[in-house]
Amino acid sequence: MDKNQKPIELIASWDTLQRIFIRPEDEASRKTLLKYMEQILFGLHDFLNTNVGVTEEISLKELTRDFKNTLINKDPEKKLTDVITDIIDKIAPKAVNVASPYFIGHMTSAMPFFMVHLKTIITALNQNVNKLETSKILSVIEKQILAKIHRLIFNKKENFYHKHVQSIDTSLGAFTTGGTTANLTALWVARNKLFSPYQDFEGIENEGIAKTMQTFSLDRLVVLVQERAHFSLKKTGGLLGIGNKNIIPIPVDSKHKINLKELEKAIKELSNNKKTKIAAVVGIAGTTETGLVDPLNDMAQICKENSLFFHVDAAWGGPVLLSEKYSHLLKGIANADSVTIDCHKQFYMPMTSGMIYFKDPLSMDQIAYHSNYVNRPGSVDIGIKTLEGSREANSLILDSALKIMGSRGYALLIDHGIKTAKEFAKEIKKRKIFEIITEPELNILTYRIVPPDLKSKLKKVSKDQKEKIENLINDINIKVQRKQREQGKSFVSRTRFKISKYDRIESVVLRCVIMSPMTDINILKEILDEQEDILTRLDIKI
Amino acid sequence: MDKNQKPIELIASWDTLQRIFIRPEDEASRKTLLKYMEQILFGLHDFLNTNVGVTEEISLKELTRDFKNTLINKDPEKKLTDVITDIIDKIAPKAVNVASPYFIGHMTSAMPFFMVHLKTIITALNQNVNKLETSKILSVIEKQILAKIHRLIFNKKENFYHKHVQSIDTSLGAFTTGGTTANLTALWVARNKLFSPYQDFEGIENEGIAKTMQTFSLDRLVVLVQERAHFSLKKTGGLLGIGNKNIIPIPVDSKHKINLKELEKAIKELSNNKKTKIAAVVGIAGTTETGLVDPLNDMAQICKENSLFFHVDAAWGGPVLLSEKYSHLLKGIANADSVTIDCHKQFYMPMTSGMIYFKDPLSMDQIAYHSNYVNRPGSVDIGIKTLEGSREANSLILDSALKIMGSRGYALLIDHGIKTAKEFAKEIKKRKIFEIITEPELNILTYRIVPPDLKSKLKKVSKDQKEKIENLINDINIKVQRKQREQGKSFVSRTRFKISKYDRIESVVLRCVIMSPMTDINILKEILDEQEDILTRLDIKI
Repeated sequence: MDKNQKPIELIASWDTLQRIFIRPEDEASRKTLLKYMEQILFGLHDFLNTNVGVTEEISLKELTRDFKNTLINKDPEKKLTDVITDIIDKIAPKAVNVASPYFIGHMTSAMPFFMVHLKTIITALNQNVNKLETSKILSVIEKQILAKIHRLIFNKKENFYHKHVQSIDTSLGAFTTGGTTANLTALWVARNKLFSPYQDFEGIENEGIAKTMQTFSLDRLVVLVQERAHFSLKKTGGLLGIGNKNIIPIPVDSKHKINLKELEKAIKELSNNKKTKIAAVVGIAGTTETGLVDPLNDMAQICKENSLFFHVDAAWGGPVLLSEKYSHLLKGIANADSVTIDCHKQFYMPMTSGMIYFKDPLSMDQIAYHSNYVNRPGSVDIGIKTLEGSREANSLILDSALKIMGSRGYALLIDHGIKTAKEFAKEIKKRKIFEIITEPELNILTYRIVPPDLKSKLKKVSKDQKEKIENLINDINIKVQRKQREQGKSFVSRTRFKISKYDRIESVVLRCVIMSPMTDINILKEILDEQEDILTRLDIKI
Repeated sequence: MDKNQKPIELIASWDTLQRIFIRPEDEASRKTLLKYMEQILFGLHDFLNTNVGVTEEISLKELTRDFKNTLINKDPEKKLTDVITDIIDKIAPKAVNVASPYFIGHMTSAMPFFMVHLKTIITALNQNVNKLETSKILSVIEKQILAKIHRLIFNKKENFYHKHVQSIDTSLGAFTTGGTTANLTALWVARNKLFSPYQDFEGIENEGIAKTMQTFSLDRLVVLVQERAHFSLKKTGGLLGIGNKNIIPIPVDSKHKINLKELEKAIKELSNNKKTKIAAVVGIAGTTETGLVDPLNDMAQICKENSLFFHVDAAWGGPVLLSEKYSHLLKGIANADSVTIDCHKQFYMPMTSGMIYFKDPLSMDQIAYHSNYVNRPGSVDIGIKTLEGSREANSLILDSALKIMGSRGYALLIDHGIKTAKEFAKEIKKRKIFEIITEPELNILTYRIVPPDLKSKLKKVSKDQKEKIENLINDINIKVQRKQREQGKSFVSRTRFKISKYDRIESVVLRCVIMSPMTDINILKEILDEQEDILTRLDIKI
């Protein structure tokens, strides 16, 4: 702060500080506060109408230049109004316009505008649903919406829900802070279920893994999941002490879904080893990379036959259950033991919110923790059985959104995404320089650029030469994706995996997620046009 | 929905649905949206001016009566305006007024009103700081504010911060979704540091605990922490596979802080057992129940001598470092290996936000995870080394709040809380029926009601009779606390612990957290008056 400047009024006295804790009563102050909100709601609008703004990596240095001071100012640096203006004028233009219909690279998109209102409500209420004493009716609403989504997934009978919806003793699920902690909660429960207290043994949660392995003469816990599962599942293995090496990757089949024969083979082999225990099998309902859904019904059957815990990571695909047209794609999910669904993905809610559900309302007893000052045994505090402690009431947002949109409103969004992805796939196949890699089952697809002359070469050459060409194709795809990102008009992401199990190297593919209702086939054609254009300007040496 | 009613316009067509994803352009729609915000900002005001509204347990049945339907409506049930009105008129009055100056029972209070604006901004931007491609400048700001708080804690030299503030390769800390995941991250890192990759052994994160114990001929991992630590630490032990039994509780001394002799004794005994490894020692900077700070400097010294990882849970007390007057209370925190601080506690931010810091900028490499579609090796994505995946940019709120308030603004709040708590303790000691249990060091204190005749009896009687009277006193305190809660004007919480190590039973104590700047000694006197009044009406059988 300029030394000649007077300190900003805000902390000039205790009185002014105290005042910022009370909502102002007089008309003038109310108007000021509202004006800020207007700035926030509509000032950010301009930003949202410009380019997608994903940064080229080179410019990061430049971007960081002004953000290196690490001292906290003693006195206020800026008034609230200047902070807000700065964010709108200087920060927002350097953020990423995830709401653009041209931003189709990640699982974040535009939201209905009322989501901002709903989040503002829960912020203003500032309830902590960890405990009834800081949330009261919000805890009740949370239990109700959990039951509604549980019913959508597991479709148990009315009397089941009547019994459990507001039950103090049982839990149908929990809100989490995202898919990672939801998956973590599921595998935590699965691990603990396998080694419940028995006689002198107080259960794995109490005793720890070392003692548990000793007690049962084991030396290894494993979890089985297809090779393309979200990396949070490996992280979960590390966190829970299972070891991420023991999150065993099962190969995918030619359709890029878990290979059931390989799964059965792995289960058999692992079960034959008396020192190994399988803690869970995980099915993916919409992989992050391809959006494809594992054969959940068959997996559930295999798990049942082998008495294994079956978790479904439907972080992405879960809300498809709201679509009458496409819910069949998740067939078998009702036979899972637990299911992850994210709120900030296809429920179109703001960051950061996820959910975990358990078929058995007693499952979460496996992770119950009590304390003396809250969450006392016998209390109705939701936090007794959640990984997280303090938690905002995101449940009220989901509850309200479902009331405002109805399941049909959500279904329209889901159906649009899948329909548009299919149209997009057709368009890709029409164009000579592209090759579709994974057809969309939900609203995600992958493809890549293969210039026609390289395509024909690939068919003729020897294995070694083929690898060389594949590397060149990878290089082209990386360059085009980066260039498009740098141009800032649109954004698709890229990833890499083996297209066929016979491949020697992983292929770079372009990945598109079609979730914004504003993203239509014309926009997608423009994005392909741009890629074609970039390709023609590339200096490729074959 | 009433069958005769027309379906609500919102989903009548694809067009209307699509429209809710775009901020309306015309003046009329803008006004409507703003009107909603006005309702939210000021409609909730009335609720905040009434009672604290913590529910009596009996009425829970009544409260849940209208929240048992578990079917999701196909069509919209309500328009946005009705949903908002309903929340303000019907939900908010049944929530808990955590912003009341009479709500002093938990670590949640009024916030500066601009926090609602700031949260609305990050919601509208909807950036995901997990990856640069969905956050760009917000990732840069996050790294800067992390460095600022790291400097506040560890106070390294300018060139250290210049090197690391925007470094791609190192991490000074991370935002988490709260204290639980912050503590979990710390102990996760501590566990992994102990068993890094070495020759054929790929590290505990990869190999899992079972294999690790085998490799090093161990049978037990432990963590040492005082008996009154937050229960999330035990939970952490369970989650990480250490076993919550192995989170060894060290007794407190007569001042209710960790007993250093007992700590040293435990370290010695455990170290003598070659099959046991101590993963970490944890100090508490502000226990949840009493707000007391462990002797961090001494603990750091002991850990250094024994080459042990030292974590400090300063979820509550961390921001006291901003107070020139009281920062000395946390002396020694700079010698910790890791520190937890919550944002939604004494940084007065909305739920849900916490932070974890590491002295060594390479510590978080222990928990690095990569994937092919984001968080690629070498990328600057923050999410590579965080427990959580997708995450909202709460860092922008802290950054802005520090700019608006300055460290002095926060210091005024901290100083007020401590000063008022000390005044409150004096007042308690003045009144005959009360007994102070833990004097406030920070802004939390505990006391209990002991009617004078029982107090004098306690001094004379035998051990068995004493226990009977103690039980009666407990009963009185529970009844008074409950009754006060039911009356709905004010709220203190209660907990139970042994007041002295010679006690046979745990005592019920009343617990107050003084954090709202609107809570002053007059309000606190009123709260004591009310308790005295309730006591006189109680039917006590001695």
